[in-house]
Amino acid sequence: MKKLIRNGTVVTATDTYKAEILIEEGKITAIGTTLPSHGAEIIDAKGCYVFPGGIDPHTHLDMPFGGTITKDDFESGTIAAAFGGTTTVIDFCLTNKGVPLNQSIQTWHEKAKDKAVIDYGFHLMIGEINDDVLKQLESVINDEGITSFKVFMAYKNVLQADDETLFQTLIAAKELGALVMVHGENGDVIDYLTKKALADGHTDPIYHALTRPPEVEGEATGRAATLTGLAESQLYVVHVSCADAVQKITEARNKGFDVWGETCPQYLVLDQSYLEQPNFEGAKYVWSPPLREKGHQEVLWNALKTGQLQTIGSDQCSFDFKDQKELGRGDFTKIPNGGPTIEDRVSILFSEGVKKGRVSLNQFVDITSTRTAKLFGLFPKKGTIAVGSDADIVIFDPNVQRTLSAEAHHMAVDYNAFEGMEVTGEPVSVLVRGEFVVRDKKFVGNPGSGHYLKRAKYGMLSSSDQNEKLTI
Amino acid sequence: MKKLIRNGTVVTATDTYKAEILIEEGKITAIGTTLPSHGAEIIDAKGCYVFPGGIDPHTHLDMPFGGTITKDDFESGTIAAAFGGTTTVIDFCLTNKGVPLNQSIQTWHEKAKDKAVIDYGFHLMIGEINDDVLKQLESVINDEGITSFKVFMAYKNVLQADDETLFQTLIAAKELGALVMVHGENGDVIDYLTKKALADGHTDPIYHALTRPPEVEGEATGRAATLTGLAESQLYVVHVSCADAVQKITEARNKGFDVWGETCPQYLVLDQSYLEQPNFEGAKYVWSPPLREKGHQEVLWNALKTGQLQTIGSDQCSFDFKDQKELGRGDFTKIPNGGPTIEDRVSILFSEGVKKGRVSLNQFVDITSTRTAKLFGLFPKKGTIAVGSDADIVIFDPNVQRTLSAEAHHMAVDYNAFEGMEVTGEPVSVLVRGEFVVRDKKFVGNPGSGHYLKRAKYGMLSSSDQNEKLTI
Amino acid sequence: MKKLIRNGTVVTATDTYKAEILIEEGKITAIGTTLPSHGAEIIDAKGCYVFPGGIDPHTHLDMPFGGTITKDDFESGTIAAAFGGTTTVIDFCLTNKGVPLNQSIQTWHEKAKDKAVIDYGFHLMIGEINDDVLKQLESVINDEGITSFKVFMAYKNVLQADDETLFQTLIAAKELGALVMVHGENGDVIDYLTKKALADGHTDPIYHALTRPPEVEGEATGRAATLTGLAESQLYVVHVSCADAVQKITEARNKGFDVWGETCPQYLVLDQSYLEQPNFEGAKYVWSPPLREKGHQEVLWNALKTGQLQTIGSDQCSFDFKDQKELGRGDFTKIPNGGPTIEDRVSILFSEGVKKGRVSLNQFVDITSTRTAKLFGLFPKKGTIAVGSDADIVIFDPNVQRTLSAEAHHMAVDYNAFEGMEVTGEPVSVLVRGEFVVRDKKFVGNPGSGHYLKRAKYGMLSSSDQNEKLTI
Amino acid sequence: MKKLIRNGTVVTATDTYKAEILIEEGKITAIGTTLPSHGAEIIDAKGCYVFPGGIDPHTHLDMPFGGTITKDDFESGTIAAAFGGTTTVIDFCLTNKGVPLNQSIQTWHEKAKDKAVIDYGFHLMIGEINDDVLKQLESVINDEGITSFKVFMAYKNVLQADDETLFQTLIAAKELGALVMVHGENGDVIDYLTKKALADGHTDPIYHALTRPPEVEGEATGRAATLTGLAESQLYVVHVSCADAVQKITEARNKGFDVWGETCPQYLVLDQSYLEQPNFEGAKYVWSPPLREKGHQEVLWNALKTGQLQTIGSDQCSFDFKDQKELGRGDFTKIPNGGPTIEDRVSILFSEGVKKGRVSLNQFVDITSTRTAKLFGLFPKKGTIAVGSDADIVIFDPNVQRTLSAEAHHMAVDYNAFEGMEVTGEPVSVLVRGEFVVRDKKFVGNPGSGHYLKRAKYGMLSSSDQNEKLTI
Repeated sequence: MKKLIRNGTVVTATDTYKAEILIEEGKITAIGTTLPSHGAEIIDAKGCYVFPGGIDPHTHLDMPFGGTITKDDFESGTIAAAFGGTTTVIDFCLTNKGVPLNQSIQTWHEKAKDKAVIDYGFHLMIGEINDDVLKQLESVINDEGITSFKVFMAYKNVLQADDETLFQTLIAAKELGALVMVHGENGDVIDYLTKKALADGHTDPIYHALTRPPEVEGEATGRAATLTGLAESQLYVVHVSCADAVQKITEARNKGFDVWGETCPQYLVLDQSYLEQPNFEGAKYVWSPPLREKGHQEVLWNALKTGQLQTIGSDQCSFDFKDQKELGRGDFTKIPNGGPTIEDRVSILFSEGVKKGRVSLNQFVDITSTRTAKLFGLFPKKGTIAVGSDADIVIFDPNVQRTLSAEAHHMAVDYNAFEGMEVTGEPVSVLVRGEFVVRDKKFVGNPGSGHYLKRAKYGMLSSSDQNEKLTI
Repeated sequence: MKKLIRNGTVVTATDTYKAEILIEEGKITAIGTTLPSHGAEIIDAKGCYVFPGGIDPHTHLDMPFGGTITKDDFESGTIAAAFGGTTTVIDFCLTNKGVPLNQSIQTWHEKAKDKAVIDYGFHLMIGEINDDVLKQLESVINDEGITSFKVFMAYKNVLQADDETLFQTLIAAKELGALVMVHGENGDVIDYLTKKALADGHTDPIYHALTRPPEVEGEATGRAATLTGLAESQLYVVHVSCADAVQKITEARNKGFDVWGETCPQYLVLDQSYLEQPNFEGAKYVWSPPLREKGHQEVLWNALKTGQLQTIGSDQCSFDFKDQKELGRGDFTKIPNGGPTIEDRVSILFSEGVKKGRVSLNQFVDITSTRTAKLFGLFPKKGTIAVGSDADIVIFDPNVQRTLSAEAHHMAVDYNAFEGMEVTGEPVSVLVRGEFVVRDKKFVGNPGSGHYLKRAKYGMLSSSDQNEKLTI
Repeated sequence: MKKLIRNGTVVTATDTYKAEILIEEGKITAIGTTLPSHGAEIIDAKGCYVFPGGIDPHTHLDMPFGGTITKDDFESGTIAAAFGGTTTVIDFCLTNKGVPLNQSIQTWHEKAKDKAVIDYGFHLMIGEINDDVLKQLESVINDEGITSFKVFMAYKNVLQADDETLFQTLIAAKELGALVMVHGENGDVIDYLTKKALADGHTDPIYHALTRPPEVEGEATGRAATLTGLAESQLYVVHVSCADAVQKITEARNKGFDVWGETCPQYLVLDQSYLEQPNFEGAKYVWSPPLREKGHQEVLWNALKTGQLQTIGSDQCSFDFKDQKELGRGDFTKIPNGGPTIEDRVSILFSEGVKKGRVSLNQFVDITSTRTAKLFGLFPKKGTIAVGSDADIVIFDPNVQRTLSAEAHHMAVDYNAFEGMEVTGEPVSVLVRGEFVVRDKKFVGNPGSGHYLKRAKYGMLSSSDQNEKLTI
Repeated sequence: MKKLIRNGTVVTATDTYKAEILIEEGKITAIGTTLPSHGAEIIDAKGCYVFPGGIDPHTHLDMPFGGTITKDDFESGTIAAAFGGTTTVIDFCLTNKGVPLNQSIQTWHEKAKDKAVIDYGFHLMIGEINDDVLKQLESVINDEGITSFKVFMAYKNVLQADDETLFQTLIAAKELGALVMVHGENGDVIDYLTKKALADGHTDPIYHALTRPPEVEGEATGRAATLTGLAESQLYVVHVSCADAVQKITEARNKGFDVWGETCPQYLVLDQSYLEQPNFEGAKYVWSPPLREKGHQEVLWNALKTGQLQTIGSDQCSFDFKDQKELGRGDFTKIPNGGPTIEDRVSILFSEGVKKGRVSLNQFVDITSTRTAKLFGLFPKKGTIAVGSDADIVIFDPNVQRTLSAEAHHMAVDYNAFEGMEVTGEPVSVLVRGEFVVRDKKFVGNPGSGHYLKRAKYGMLSSSDQNEKLTI
């Protein structure tokens, strides 16, 4: 059935205007001031913004980590995402050395298929490069539509790849048309500092931050950028947390290197002091890279404003405080890394960014949705409100005041990382391909209704009928 | 009468999609795949892009300079602009110390009113600041809608203002809601080098470039940016020509200063060697700042791509070679500065930028139109293709091959700065507020049909009914 | 009569060793472990360092400023200098536009000749450049041996020169063999901020600092450095107070520009908070540039250690608190700028620098003496302990603890800028050309015994018999 | 027997003066204008400079490499060094994982003891860190007087250590009082590029340079500097070849990190084009890091002048062209890395540096001798001409013109890296601890007369009776 969204203010990464939006067969077919309504269901967006659905480029749903597993799976995770105004996630598919990549990918398909309520794609972790892997990558791209590979420069002896593997991945990605993502921290230094801290009896959560200082993130980020320039390839630095890393990304971009950066809501509004909360509550705030001294926040905000950083990912990786985070009592290295952020990503950027004048309304859309769609081969199918695009739409009330909390949220975990934070603005209704998933703040979706997204190669438009290159 | 543009690919600073555009009463009222055509004139844009009309933020039409006057006035100048895909210009209104600002503005209104075939606004030159001037500025902004002020750091003893004047202008602009523009070159050093060159018998055009090296542009740009940061004001650096200035702008932006930069087509594709052409032909290429060594071009292109620079102006300031440029035979300081660029600005950025993969198609629109509209208080009335915006539209054939030349161009001057340059792409038809000015490459407009544009304050949306701030 | 200094540890900018020093006819003639003592007066330096006499490159003795005159003249000033371990000063000779330079120089000779107890030279202020001045400069260098010129970028409408004057001075200095010195602050911005502060009723001493922030020093310093690079000339930035200026000097040096920087003891150990002392006592701490936030100190120290800055001057410019500093009660712009620092310059660098491990003992000698001698055409006559050099020697007890105070000092002013500061180390005896000026902490010199020093051209050795170029 | 050097011009890192030098029992006991000559052998240095003997901080004598062994051992190598004006070398003692460090050191003692004609010390390679190694290091420092450790960031699977090993070495060095040296190139990237080049059939010597571009040196140097800052330790970067690495060292120093840099004569005067010489002659110029594009030379010279780099090492590592370099015909990776440079190090810096005005005469002494002595615990025993220091002296004729060549040199190899280069200046006579090793350009020394040097801890003076810290 056709739908007509009326009375809202449409916002894209460029435009802000009052108009009606006509949706037919899951797509936007017309935008205008007085569109014919015959036969269409009328949706009133009075007083609201009409945004393209958010795209979260960085989630870990149903992921094993350190002997436990993230609390949110593709069902609770995508429901929470939808409540937060996100209509697409790209989740990280982990791999193991020696195991066929396809096997890992199938595992991830299994995790998602009957559960996701919004659309989703996968990034693929690269732990090793050899002739066999290189051969598999062609199929990964062409058959699976997975066009982004992640390399870890940290987690020594677990996930960490050496520089040769990273460099080979960059070379391969360039040839195959994929985007390389890095977790940029120097795992060797962290390994030493961590062992040293434990040996010195420093076991509290705060030592998680103190053993991975900003310098190790800046160093690794700069290294990855240098390798990218040498390889003439493309790089996307995930979860940038500090000024040191921003500077390295900026230097690379100014030299003409094709390097991009993502930050996360937690780095924009929380700081290192949270890890010092008593009663082991600091464990709730254990991310890698860690929360930083408050001064880094201003640099991150300015980087989003000036385009030194381009996207925001949640790095959703949720564990209950009880029984899960608590695994690290007495040994901070055993605290599962990560937190529940998928639901509040968009709202925090709106409230702290747009409302406080740090980024414009259009930049907000670019950062939470459009830029990600372009970088990851989803545009223009996803990431905008334009004729021909999927009707992934968020009707957002910009004036409502509310308080973020575990009580109110829809994630499966027992705490909220932003507990007590006052925000302005809230998604009222959310549509995926023209169908309501959230309507008037109530869940109306169906697990399994989310589609798996085969993504275009790096720098290409998503739809095959527009075979023109999208130079990003 | 209604118009319906069919079969084209609509391009904005964000989007690229196939759709029809409905125009009513000069505005865009609907965009869709199958809009009702009853009563509308059908315009076929098959095979073409449909761009928002270009906005040229930097023109000097009908301007006196060094005892002569620019060849193109508001008639020939705006006709040429329209042929080139530009539907709005913002021209510089010169002032004189001691003369009421309003008097200068009226002079400029006289120059434009019966001649312009496209819409236009004015920037205002500030040569002095005192209590009287400050008082007049309020009216300039509120009554005239002139919300950008230009200060010259060069042209000693003629246009040059001292640092205190610049600083006061920045302070006043912040309070009043205007954007300060600077010509960033150190006029004192240039004055010495120029006199020295002449004293040494160096009179050829190339000495124009050699007496104003990149360092003096970098220095002045950095100085203006520092003063902007101190004043917590906003700055727009016109005609950035070199890596030195790009670096200073970037450093300022990375510190969080509100600083923007414009480059010009001549700096992107011509270089200093042009000034050495024999038979005094080098005089055709005399701009201030001058053309640079070729290596600077790559830096400028990358700056546009990464957002270190944001706009492209023509700095249109045309003089005939014969009788005008020739005034400087035997004394390069008497060569009128400037050249004819208003017509080829958009095409050069498309051909050399988009077609060669240096900027994306959407960035092209942002750089030639949207960003300028946002910075200068014209958005969303101008600068985009969106419901509610003025139907300033360019139907652009991206595949036609042609050669830029004086013979083919529509400017009133006897040479073309890009003579012989092969470009891909050409505007086919151009509409201003829904009316054709150029149709199928023929001029169909009317002198005097262009509207004067009162612009919103810096950072505000153009239309009064959307009183929300546009954080740029 | 011959003298033999025994039992001391000789320290130069390179060496540290135990040896005896033989002095004959005012010069050092031998250094050894067991020199023949026949006929020599024996001076016991047991437990002491034997340093080359300090050279203070920056003093204002007997100088008119704002309607008053500095309290210390060449007698009290040089006596205090000697007590502090300084055996040579280079004082600034002010000039007036239109007045023959020679007349100003004669005035300065008059000030010094019957009063100085140590050797002295002059820098010359340049307020204007024209053909007549250029002609006079040749004589200034060749006849007067004044080979350093000072240009002010601040004190608008009083001392400030424009950029063209600075640039011309740089060009002339290059040709003539002189070193250009700048006071690097943007006087235009300061002028505005100062008037604004007064207009807003801000009259307290702290506003002296707030109206000339670090950015205006960084800006002017960078501008001067850029002009120096363009002129391929040489520059010495006086009284560097902040990180902003250090950065600009470093960037210039790294580009290969011949740029040097001096800091002062007050910037190394005092900070902006001193200007907020109650009862108008903040006026004692009014220097231009002003004292900075404490964080700048670490940058200055590191700059001395790494050679980004090379010398330390006192900027001695003393006024009584009573009646002189008090002229500025109710209007901070009327507070005479400057303070009494000539006596404690060396001791502070020793105590805070060497003793706290921030600079090495040899660097201390280089910074307080040797580097200055080399830069200003006094080496090797002055600035080192070597065979053939003048016996300007300080016997310094490195272990004595004492407290700086007005009560103990020998300057003519009624307060000490470092009142109450505990330092380690003190000059015990001081010789100029082999004659005691201070002996066992008592003054034994004679006013008028100081020699005027004609200095070699920039980059040349002081003595005519060694006509080899000293590449600095 | 006593010796008296007359008529020369003594030059130290600070001073330049005419004087006589008295030598007794191998040490300098007096310096003066008319020293008593009774019983002393008179050495006439008329027309010559008298320099402290050069100290070469970087040699590989009698070193196995890739299946062959360097041609020069401690006999021919130190004889050539002496002819070149070098009186001390510090050679690299290689180690093997799992082998006791002491065993490797003993091997190196064996290589040197009956052969060296000048004094020598050892650096120690660190390939692994564990509790056992850490324990041995205490003895290495205290018993062997080896106070500098070298870590390789390149030569993957052969010498390369990972970042954790480097970081641990830095921590250990800080605690033990040693200086960490790095070979700063990213071995992982080089490994890939090398394999790729060979796979593509690129086997010529030039590919040695092309597979290890400046970026990999800059990256690794910056990484090592970052780790040093984190460890609050001290770092010495060997053989800096390019602007990229200079920049990283400078950034680190400006942040206050204790980081130093050495370059080599080959990087100052040869360039990458040498590797393209026909008939496989390019192999003569295979160093790691490789020779660079010519533009880097100016940066290196300026870095020496401004103190961004502080020393010059030869990186002597000589192989015959015939039979040794030729091992790499058809596979550039099999060309033994290195060249014969020990003899010409000092002369090249004098001729190309001092004579061409790039560094001063005093800086020349600092760079070739004094600074190295201070950094490596040899000062003031070595590295200067001062009372009490070893009489390691070079009598140097600054005016002789000569041509560097294999025919004239004293190294055991069949080619000279600087063949045909015209230089000005030559060592005439060279004394070690007061004994001639070279006299009037003839070898008069004795193999085995060189002493092994136990060196002081980092930052300490060499002699135990002066227990004061030398803050470098």
